[in-house]
Amino acid sequence: MTNDSFVLRGGIAFSDGPNSIVTYYRGYVVCMDGVCKGAFVELPSKYKALQLYDYGERLIIPGMTDLHVHAPQYTFRGIGMDAELLEWLSTYTFPEEAKYADMEYARKAYQYFTEDLRRCFTTRAVVFGTLHNEATIELMNQLERTGVITYVGKVNMDRNGGENLQEESAEASLSSTIEWLDQVQDKYVNTKPILTPRFIPSCSDELMTGIGKLAEEKNLRIQSHLSENHSEIAWVKDLVPESTCYANAYEMFNTMGTVDRPTIMAHCVHSDDREIAILKKHGAYIAHCADSNMNLTSGIAPVRRFLDAGVNVGLGTDVAAGSSMNMVKTMLITLQASKMYYRLVDEKVKPLTFEEVFYLATAGGGKYFGNVGTFKDGYDFDAVVIDDSKMFSMRDMSIRERIERMCYNDADAIIKDKFVKGKKVFSAIL
Amino acid sequence: MTNDSFVLRGGIAFSDGPNSIVTYYRGYVVCMDGVCKGAFVELPSKYKALQLYDYGERLIIPGMTDLHVHAPQYTFRGIGMDAELLEWLSTYTFPEEAKYADMEYARKAYQYFTEDLRRCFTTRAVVFGTLHNEATIELMNQLERTGVITYVGKVNMDRNGGENLQEESAEASLSSTIEWLDQVQDKYVNTKPILTPRFIPSCSDELMTGIGKLAEEKNLRIQSHLSENHSEIAWVKDLVPESTCYANAYEMFNTMGTVDRPTIMAHCVHSDDREIAILKKHGAYIAHCADSNMNLTSGIAPVRRFLDAGVNVGLGTDVAAGSSMNMVKTMLITLQASKMYYRLVDEKVKPLTFEEVFYLATAGGGKYFGNVGTFKDGYDFDAVVIDDSKMFSMRDMSIRERIERMCYNDADAIIKDKFVKGKKVFSAIL
Repeated sequence: MTNDSFVLRGGIAFSDGPNSIVTYYRGYVVCMDGVCKGAFVELPSKYKALQLYDYGERLIIPGMTDLHVHAPQYTFRGIGMDAELLEWLSTYTFPEEAKYADMEYARKAYQYFTEDLRRCFTTRAVVFGTLHNEATIELMNQLERTGVITYVGKVNMDRNGGENLQEESAEASLSSTIEWLDQVQDKYVNTKPILTPRFIPSCSDELMTGIGKLAEEKNLRIQSHLSENHSEIAWVKDLVPESTCYANAYEMFNTMGTVDRPTIMAHCVHSDDREIAILKKHGAYIAHCADSNMNLTSGIAPVRRFLDAGVNVGLGTDVAAGSSMNMVKTMLITLQASKMYYRLVDEKVKPLTFEEVFYLATAGGGKYFGNVGTFKDGYDFDAVVIDDSKMFSMRDMSIRERIERMCYNDADAIIKDKFVKGKKVFSAIL
Repeated sequence: MTNDSFVLRGGIAFSDGPNSIVTYYRGYVVCMDGVCKGAFVELPSKYKALQLYDYGERLIIPGMTDLHVHAPQYTFRGIGMDAELLEWLSTYTFPEEAKYADMEYARKAYQYFTEDLRRCFTTRAVVFGTLHNEATIELMNQLERTGVITYVGKVNMDRNGGENLQEESAEASLSSTIEWLDQVQDKYVNTKPILTPRFIPSCSDELMTGIGKLAEEKNLRIQSHLSENHSEIAWVKDLVPESTCYANAYEMFNTMGTVDRPTIMAHCVHSDDREIAILKKHGAYIAHCADSNMNLTSGIAPVRRFLDAGVNVGLGTDVAAGSSMNMVKTMLITLQASKMYYRLVDEKVKPLTFEEVFYLATAGGGKYFGNVGTFKDGYDFDAVVIDDSKMFSMRDMSIRERIERMCYNDADAIIKDKFVKGKKVFSAIL
């Protein structure tokens, strides 16, 4: 028995599939060597010798997975939000990312990002860096210290980045990627590299083909963007005229991944049945980023249709097109977006329920990392303890009511402690 | 010169019409006897004798007006949000409001509501109570102590409220309203009564006619709900078959008000050109409640069309269908909603800009209270001082950028001080 074995007591809530949240008032959740042994109404006698931490009336929920977040964009979150995607990229994003050539800048900026990540509901994240190797390694070093488990990508882009944010050639981008991989693969406990072609407009055919090959050779995962915005989609059709759709363009370059090394595609706002079938076929994950998709006027992704088709889906904050790394706020916006899709686009597509969105934020995205995101036996012990006492009540509220209220009032849901694989990575004095 | 005369210095931002935000870095805003004398880059010499409060790098913006909020619903905000309007009213709202027959309950619950109102960005609010006179007077007593300036309504409802939340008859409702008015009119400095027929499904023709008459006789304003939800609209058509539309039903009962005593209509999600023309003709105010309208799957109101038609518009949080009284969060959701209206409903209706939404939250709604909501000469001095230092930056940001960032990251915008008509009504130790 190690320090990573203990019992937490409090108001427990976790997903038992997309349609069910299990709750225990003053229940128990057991961690043995970083692995969850289940949650219980009564503590089984075999766990009674473990150290018990009683959180009283506080809530204990699984940690959340942020499937899509841009670390270098954290610096300008909440600014320039009246623009759409391509204008926003050229006006705000690319000039900011270019600054990460300066290591002093990168070090400082990433300190703010990683510290916020350590303090938020997120226990797992899949992160974009910039095209700069050195800054991306700095980001990975910092992330490793947070205890949060991540995939991190040095970005590939050999076209359309403008003067200051573009690699010289496909070859230069690929060799730089291999150099980066040599420095970071197997270096960390919690931080893994992921291949990150920004999106097709940023990557030549040669570069995309090279990345597809590298992923296969080195057994690496890939993350990218798909079907976010109408102008972007039209541009991709121009750039890869022989593709049948945007997803097919990725497929042509062998970058759609496999079930064993699934690709994450952020957005899929405008993905139709054909794209959904491609995503499904490859076992890809959709990072649904509702906040970003509303902010950049991209639209609303048909998440219900993804779920019905059996495609893997999780949530992404997509900072800085999404304005905050708060996954609980992201849950609220996800719910609102799905209600508006139903009301304004297609009343045959029922809105997501709170149960489903809670599932997406925890177990849905968590699945990308293995057995992650719920309190079932055998899952990694990722947990967040929440103090919601600032939101008074006139009566006893159920745990189910309290987690819904927390989602709609994220500013008043205070994180007390956060655990990743049984290690406490953050603790607040409340 | 009194205590209500002083100068504030800091990062100043205020609306100069719907399309322009004026900002002064380390500027000045002058208050004389509770009235704003303007904002300045350099302090005019005639004000140099006034007490100066220097807020350094903090932001100073006009107070915000919440045109639509239900005080008794504050207790269950953020719960039951998977329901639509009519189910939500019967399942959550009416049973909760019925509890305000119990004065001990009402006193305690309203303490939470009024304390939150005192601490938030709102300096003016138009508030629904319940049908209970005693509880509504308690609410008004408590609101008066906050220093926030409000209109408050005892609710009228003589049908479809169920067993525990319905007045016995139109006559009983009207006489109870007159009793309430006798007790509260001219009793307060900051708190005024407003006639509050809940909505047509809750009020018989006789009651509506009586309220219209009372408003005219006693020169009182009216607030109600209009065209929020499809089922509600169909129901109104059944209840008042001779009306040409929902707004016309209010018109028939003489409850649409006049330019001098404008009616507030919350929502107007589904208002067409005919309804917009009726609202315009009467000088009515639309309380746009985007958070509520998304949460209850009502839809998105075409705010751009209201503005183009010259109808008065402000924002409402509509707690508890809106989940929080934070007007800054409401601004964010208003922006997102208008972007989705553009993208999903009608690309001829351009999204609201940040400038416009800032205007709606401050001067747009403030106009209902007179010269309120901006820092021009002659306006009431309502101001909020904000500490946004929690949101670090890697460079000097303009005031305009900082207020946009604040809107997208409401949880990190901390209110330092709040002034209403030159009186400090809230101050935080930061």
